[in-house]
Amino acid sequence: MKIITISREFGSGGREVGKRLADELGFAYYDREIIAAVAKNSELDEGYVEKILETGIPRTFPFSFGRSFAFSDVSQQNYTKALVAQQSFIIQLARKGEDFVIVGRSADVILSEYFPFNIFVHADMYSKIDRCIDRAPEDEELTRREYERKIKQIDSARARHRALLSDSPWGKKESYHLCVNTTGKEIKALVPGIAAYVKAWFGE
Amino acid sequence: MKIITISREFGSGGREVGKRLADELGFAYYDREIIAAVAKNSELDEGYVEKILETGIPRTFPFSFGRSFAFSDVSQQNYTKALVAQQSFIIQLARKGEDFVIVGRSADVILSEYFPFNIFVHADMYSKIDRCIDRAPEDEELTRREYERKIKQIDSARARHRALLSDSPWGKKESYHLCVNTTGKEIKALVPGIAAYVKAWFGE
Repeated sequence: MKIITISREFGSGGREVGKRLADELGFAYYDREIIAAVAKNSELDEGYVEKILETGIPRTFPFSFGRSFAFSDVSQQNYTKALVAQQSFIIQLARKGEDFVIVGRSADVILSEYFPFNIFVHADMYSKIDRCIDRAPEDEELTRREYERKIKQIDSARARHRALLSDSPWGKKESYHLCVNTTGKEIKALVPGIAAYVKAWFGE
Repeated sequence: MKIITISREFGSGGREVGKRLADELGFAYYDREIIAAVAKNSELDEGYVEKILETGIPRTFPFSFGRSFAFSDVSQQNYTKALVAQQSFIIQLARKGEDFVIVGRSADVILSEYFPFNIFVHADMYSKIDRCIDRAPEDEELTRREYERKIKQIDSARARHRALLSDSPWGKKESYHLCVNTTGKEIKALVPGIAAYVKAWFGE
């Protein structure tokens, strides 16, 4: 079984890398399907699960996590519920034994005992904002500065989420097998090269 | 013309990546040839040039560089001479117009106007020490701890050298197009994958 995990900066094209890589290699692909499964298993609304998993941990969370506190905050309780359901679902995926690509969700850490190949996708801020603007829904009208703020917020939530699970930091090259810089490049053009590298790495 | 630069942590196998990648792509390869050319052009001894370029800058160098000081220190004067000769030689290489791979020497910064493809090769400390031990000359008997110190010293000289030329830091993924982690892997097995990625990146 071969597992490829994609971690990425928001706006770097990491999701597209994951989808196209799965197509190129003939692997299954998991991303938003996970949200639906988590919602079902945790008996929470799908939109709500997506939101709390994306917005991430309140900044105080890692500090109160170790203490026995009263879970007075419903959203924090739900967040924990969603995280646990997500983790179980991801481990179930690996147990099925099929080759797959999974985007985000700290899957590289959760699945470490299955020896996944871990990719980090990044780009410079200018290029990430461009990509956000290209892909924005018609009714979304943010300035470049607002996109920059959004990108930083989401990435910071991702880093905090990972820090709950691992000592190896989010976005540091040492935490991954391959770091791909997509600045100024079309994802479509790069994916055959990434696929070839993955095959070489798995000894094919 | 296509230029590939390889920056690397000492012991990560970066030089082997460069050599094999040049073979795989049919590119010229430059590494130690540069030392010979620098020695000739700066009228310094080859072994001495190699040593001062490897050992790098005295820690105070960046601070005194901007002032008009008397160059009382011969080794500092020679270091500057060697650096300048090296930089000229690397630019001459690019002007020849042939495709080539170059290892080290901050070539990614020196050649930035030629739009090189910049790779950083790294590995975890354990793996780097193993590689150093495998390749040590018979009369070199260092402990693992001594190798670790050596690796850190050389890499720190590399980082200081780059800092003289560029604001983008040595070894940070943002400074490169691709970061390759060779931990636990044979370089030989990975090179075809890197070559395929380089081709994709250059739009072949």
